[in-house]
Amino acid sequence: MASSVLPENGWFSERYEPGGSAFSLKIIKKLHEVQSPFQKIEVYQTETFGTLMVIDGATMVSSRENFFYHEMMSHPILYSHPAPKRVLIIGGGDCGTLREVLRHPEVESVQQVDIDEEVTKAALKYFPELCESNNDPRAELHFVDGIKWLTEAEKGRYDVIIVDGTDPVGPGEGLFNQAFYQSCWHALADNGILGQQTETPLYHMALLNEVRGAMRHAGFGHMHTLTFPQPIYPSGWWAATLAFKLGNEQTFRADDIANKPFETEYYNLDIHRATLALPEFMRRGLVV
Amino acid sequence: MASSVLPENGWFSERYEPGGSAFSLKIIKKLHEVQSPFQKIEVYQTETFGTLMVIDGATMVSSRENFFYHEMMSHPILYSHPAPKRVLIIGGGDCGTLREVLRHPEVESVQQVDIDEEVTKAALKYFPELCESNNDPRAELHFVDGIKWLTEAEKGRYDVIIVDGTDPVGPGEGLFNQAFYQSCWHALADNGILGQQTETPLYHMALLNEVRGAMRHAGFGHMHTLTFPQPIYPSGWWAATLAFKLGNEQTFRADDIANKPFETEYYNLDIHRATLALPEFMRRGLVV
Repeated sequence: MASSVLPENGWFSERYEPGGSAFSLKIIKKLHEVQSPFQKIEVYQTETFGTLMVIDGATMVSSRENFFYHEMMSHPILYSHPAPKRVLIIGGGDCGTLREVLRHPEVESVQQVDIDEEVTKAALKYFPELCESNNDPRAELHFVDGIKWLTEAEKGRYDVIIVDGTDPVGPGEGLFNQAFYQSCWHALADNGILGQQTETPLYHMALLNEVRGAMRHAGFGHMHTLTFPQPIYPSGWWAATLAFKLGNEQTFRADDIANKPFETEYYNLDIHRATLALPEFMRRGLVV
Repeated sequence: MASSVLPENGWFSERYEPGGSAFSLKIIKKLHEVQSPFQKIEVYQTETFGTLMVIDGATMVSSRENFFYHEMMSHPILYSHPAPKRVLIIGGGDCGTLREVLRHPEVESVQQVDIDEEVTKAALKYFPELCESNNDPRAELHFVDGIKWLTEAEKGRYDVIIVDGTDPVGPGEGLFNQAFYQSCWHALADNGILGQQTETPLYHMALLNEVRGAMRHAGFGHMHTLTFPQPIYPSGWWAATLAFKLGNEQTFRADDIANKPFETEYYNLDIHRATLALPEFMRRGLVV
């Protein structure tokens, strides 16, 4: 879906052809390139966005602005659960979501399952700050197929599952269908919540409806899509969708958020409340 | 600050050099180009974003996504005022903000003052939907210097002033300083509100503090900065700052928003409430 080009010396560009748009960052140099069995991983030193990881031509994470994504993939879902003790992250190889999840003292164990160890190897070297909690005794990193992992998971094994995968093409494709959501539903405890990155609403309302429909058919009782700024992804605006077995997004641990024992850059109690708002075209356009 | 290039046939790019980033849209053809006494105005037909207006190399407005900007420059400020009857728009030559302001039945008169008639001429031809309310009997369009207009304005003449100008360089530069805000303060009635586009928080926290400081020194009692998606501007995320002579953003006409007599694409009551939230780095970083 994306193609990376260097139209002129010194710029990395991601062209998102279906959206007819491109985002570019001025680069100083390429730091790393490896073709794993699954995808091509590149790391650049940019002029103003710090270090940038690119997978199969699509910008994945920059040291300057990854806080938007990693905080919003972690804190809203964890504070929406009454007691999130056992967490599974599918994907998430840059380890930024893992770091944020481990900031929560209620969390007793986190299993992270990413198919491609090369992503984490690159993160360890070029994004050490994102990996600073990898050695937390509560964390386990597995480099195997997350889809298979979930089909084999014990029923009710997790309180929260976070799907921090790539776009719904290539290795990420199998993370966006009903069979996968059924595995998640089965592996979640009765009040479990699934959270997934779900692309940008400006381009992908059809995908959002497909995802939410597949979640519903898999058994989830309620879905909520929240949005946040995402400067290096197409359109600059991104969505995550929460799927609740029971309950919904209206009951969250407000007091715990107000007294959270860690610093954030984007997320706070007011921002949590703001994630409850659906833009009007989404309110009209989400049919599931 | 911005430079437009066509790095390869078929793409328009805005390079935002201070931010080290660029945004590009795939284009079908250039529809219009004129060098006014103030700036260079171009209009393109894009592949996926409809019509695009570019001023001095910076993307200004596209038919696909201008609703974010125009709704968020209009409705939050108007619904924050108890009875917005007399409105002044400085800049706003594409007439999209004017159209949104005129959707409010409480508004009795809107004066729009843009220095460059060529912008409105291009909008009339290429963005007719944004200009559909230009002949509303409540609207007056003036093509003169907005700074001079305000220095000559009667004290307390307006309930709401919306500054919908370009970046703080070129013709827009004089719209970002204390002298200008003093003119606004003088021209506003006692419970008047000033609203201004104030660039992107990701790149421009220093500018935001300067602007808010200058507003404070000009006499405004309280400021609030709100953010919204802005796909075609640098970083994809934009801010508007409201400056209140009296009162603040916490008192808004919630019932009127819930019963607004017009359709929107982004704005609604939940989104209005969401605009009250400040991201954590802004809460910490805004010192005024």
